[in-house]
Amino acid sequence: MALNKIYDTSLTLLTDLYQLTMAHGYWKTGRAEQEAVFHLFFRKNPFQGGYTIAAGLEYALEYIRHFQFSEDDLSYLKTLEGNDGRPLFSSGFLEYLADLRITCDLAAVPEGTVVFPHEPLVRVTGPILQCQLLETALLNLINFQTLIATKSARICTATGGDPVLEFGLRRAQGIDGGLAASRAAYIGGCAATSNVLAGKLFGIPVKGTHAHSWVMSYDDELSAFEDYARAMPNNCVFLVDTYDTLDGVRNAVRVGIQLKESGHQMVGIRLDSGDLAYLSIEARRLLDEAGLTEAAIVASNDLDETTISSLKMQGAKIAVWGVGTRLVTAFEQPALGGVYKLGAIRNEDQEWEPRLKLSEQAIKTSTPGILQTRRYLNENGAVADMIFNELAPPTSERSVLIDPLDSTRRRVLDDKLDSQDLLIPVVQQGEIVHQHESLSVIRERAQQQLDLFHVGIQRHLEPHEYPVGLEQGLYDYKTEQILLARKLNHQ
Amino acid sequence: MALNKIYDTSLTLLTDLYQLTMAHGYWKTGRAEQEAVFHLFFRKNPFQGGYTIAAGLEYALEYIRHFQFSEDDLSYLKTLEGNDGRPLFSSGFLEYLADLRITCDLAAVPEGTVVFPHEPLVRVTGPILQCQLLETALLNLINFQTLIATKSARICTATGGDPVLEFGLRRAQGIDGGLAASRAAYIGGCAATSNVLAGKLFGIPVKGTHAHSWVMSYDDELSAFEDYARAMPNNCVFLVDTYDTLDGVRNAVRVGIQLKESGHQMVGIRLDSGDLAYLSIEARRLLDEAGLTEAAIVASNDLDETTISSLKMQGAKIAVWGVGTRLVTAFEQPALGGVYKLGAIRNEDQEWEPRLKLSEQAIKTSTPGILQTRRYLNENGAVADMIFNELAPPTSERSVLIDPLDSTRRRVLDDKLDSQDLLIPVVQQGEIVHQHESLSVIRERAQQQLDLFHVGIQRHLEPHEYPVGLEQGLYDYKTEQILLARKLNHQ
Repeated sequence: MALNKIYDTSLTLLTDLYQLTMAHGYWKTGRAEQEAVFHLFFRKNPFQGGYTIAAGLEYALEYIRHFQFSEDDLSYLKTLEGNDGRPLFSSGFLEYLADLRITCDLAAVPEGTVVFPHEPLVRVTGPILQCQLLETALLNLINFQTLIATKSARICTATGGDPVLEFGLRRAQGIDGGLAASRAAYIGGCAATSNVLAGKLFGIPVKGTHAHSWVMSYDDELSAFEDYARAMPNNCVFLVDTYDTLDGVRNAVRVGIQLKESGHQMVGIRLDSGDLAYLSIEARRLLDEAGLTEAAIVASNDLDETTISSLKMQGAKIAVWGVGTRLVTAFEQPALGGVYKLGAIRNEDQEWEPRLKLSEQAIKTSTPGILQTRRYLNENGAVADMIFNELAPPTSERSVLIDPLDSTRRRVLDDKLDSQDLLIPVVQQGEIVHQHESLSVIRERAQQQLDLFHVGIQRHLEPHEYPVGLEQGLYDYKTEQILLARKLNHQ
Repeated sequence: MALNKIYDTSLTLLTDLYQLTMAHGYWKTGRAEQEAVFHLFFRKNPFQGGYTIAAGLEYALEYIRHFQFSEDDLSYLKTLEGNDGRPLFSSGFLEYLADLRITCDLAAVPEGTVVFPHEPLVRVTGPILQCQLLETALLNLINFQTLIATKSARICTATGGDPVLEFGLRRAQGIDGGLAASRAAYIGGCAATSNVLAGKLFGIPVKGTHAHSWVMSYDDELSAFEDYARAMPNNCVFLVDTYDTLDGVRNAVRVGIQLKESGHQMVGIRLDSGDLAYLSIEARRLLDEAGLTEAAIVASNDLDETTISSLKMQGAKIAVWGVGTRLVTAFEQPALGGVYKLGAIRNEDQEWEPRLKLSEQAIKTSTPGILQTRRYLNENGAVADMIFNELAPPTSERSVLIDPLDSTRRRVLDDKLDSQDLLIPVVQQGEIVHQHESLSVIRERAQQQLDLFHVGIQRHLEPHEYPVGLEQGLYDYKTEQILLARKLNHQ
């Protein structure tokens, strides 16, 4: 195993084996080209929150752009065996894979869009074999970045506009766990990252100072700060807690004054342990008394939206927040439960037949159809989202939406409202038609999107529940199908 | 941004910016080549457990093997600015980086070794600038795989020897969060993965069946199973819970009998929702009544060591356990808090000077010296681990070890005990000297290592605390240094 080899390999096999065995099944039963529609969605906002920010689409599109089984991939698949010791895949099937290119259509919500449970983030339409082969990678790429963009937005809300620096690389879940997290954290509102490779690849601003080891490599802290200031006079944020924090602040103040006298400016100091409320207030006093009013106090140490809110309430004098582990791993809930479910299949008569998966839990029963989400807006912002079946769209005069988990919650939507359909075409016949967007455009969209909604959805405790429902016709159809599948339909 | 580009890039910039600003500082103050020793260790076993399994070293070695700033990297670094708008890095420094190759020595515990808090997993000796540049990547690569190997071992203990299949890719934290997790999960004891790329790259057995969508693409479940059996007669594990689970089992039984009649064998069925205890017992009964006694019941659905133990206690008839999200993200604690601390630095007289970082919490104060761990063994296995300073190793007659967090807990180690030093040389002067090991060798080591210890360390609730301490001389030295640094040493 060479690290480089992982990263030079075709990623086409980044999938679960069952996608390939099913593909084999579709191919062998002559149904490889049968058209199907799949939806990628999640069932609950992460972190018991009131919203989710979609991210990761660009990775998904790049995956599709490069989708192709390499000779290596096929040689490997050839070695796999079934329980009788015979090859798992027939050679005809492997030849089929060798020539396979994605010809699906994909519609997706743009990255940075605020989304809610049950709304499709991605809709894949095309030969069922291909739809299936894309499932695992789409879920992997979109689940993770959506999770982190949402976590980041929550943390940025907690700081009330103070900049948040993402410092998580060392505790991230692997190389890409770090890189993709830096990208998504920036989308969610972080101001910068410490991850230099993410800075290089994505154009995210990078920030950093020095570590305890810099101070420990000197006989005393003051010499360490002085030397650092001489070497990097335009990047001085001194980490003051290697020995005694307030002594550290006093040493930083001395060097801050020296910097000022030589025409430079100390950016600030950093607190990385201890009682951040107490220490930041004392440090602010020491800095201000010395006339270093512009020096910022940066704090870090296992911070997240909860500790930040608490520090804010305690009057901590922290201007910049360094957040690592708890952001890049989404510590309190490290996975978004995104799923990818079949919505409809085209039958032999070329007609679309909606399909659903049952479950004893209503929340886990999938919604049949070719789904789209329509967001209704008035002059104040978003009013409600309606999930509907494109095969039977809502009529223009009157649109009723029904809460999928409580049919007594209904809402009639005024036809004078503006509306916008969230899924837009991003791949047509396998060709990427979605234009590349810079991260800063996506980051701005996330902010603008959040501004569309009542601020209550951003509350961390018991957030406002934004209305999302099924269009009445879709609701009725789904109910009928469930009863039919449960053989409880006595019509 | 192209996905391929991430994965074709030099990974040398996979670091925090402050490593580079410190490197600049060391270079500018003429201390780039000053020798230092850093230790990578963690402070608490994850999951409130009694042990940890080291993993990820091979990735770290590959990172070092390929460490080299590319022209791209340097062009990017040249664009970075300080707070005065002037370049952050001088051109002389960037030229220095262009020629930089790693010349450090690394010692490390082999992957699969059972380790405990405060024991170095990796020790880096060399020019301080280089040691610093390696920090972030080493932490990223080793923290994550160590976390997952440990989680996997805990889950495999809970199944009591039943095979565990790792199914986590779709919920993993990014591409590498999936690949590295599959690797580490196998080290920790998993029998196979669903991740085909991990199978190809690492030689891990791959397993898989079909999804709900296969069943949903048919008008009825029985036809779906029959077609699958015709297409893949040697890989039949039927997912039975698309509609009604026990009806699904009955359909699988029918097809299992057909398979048997045609000379094949149904591998089993899979339960993915509902009350797994009840359903597995009922399913087992249905299978056995039909003479399909060899068909295995595979279960999945947000399983981890806690739910598995509970299902075992309830007498669930599950033979194979599919574990996904909670394994590959280490859901209950998605980060290992590994750190990388300076232990000693060589002074102008070429003498090693131990260094420590203070903290108000004793557990966070680092241990000074050039550290090694000696494991003492008797005929029953491991007795205790002693962390000592190689500059002042324990004397052969008498070795006393002291609990670093409670100095009244001491243990005298008999000199007749066997012992083994855990850190072995893996890089010398920048050259990898550690021989590549196959994953199955590493996996076997993890099992053999666990067998060395009292089984109580594997208990999930209040595990046995294996004795790990500092060698008495090191303990005394550390205490003295703390008092000195706190200016409380009145000698």
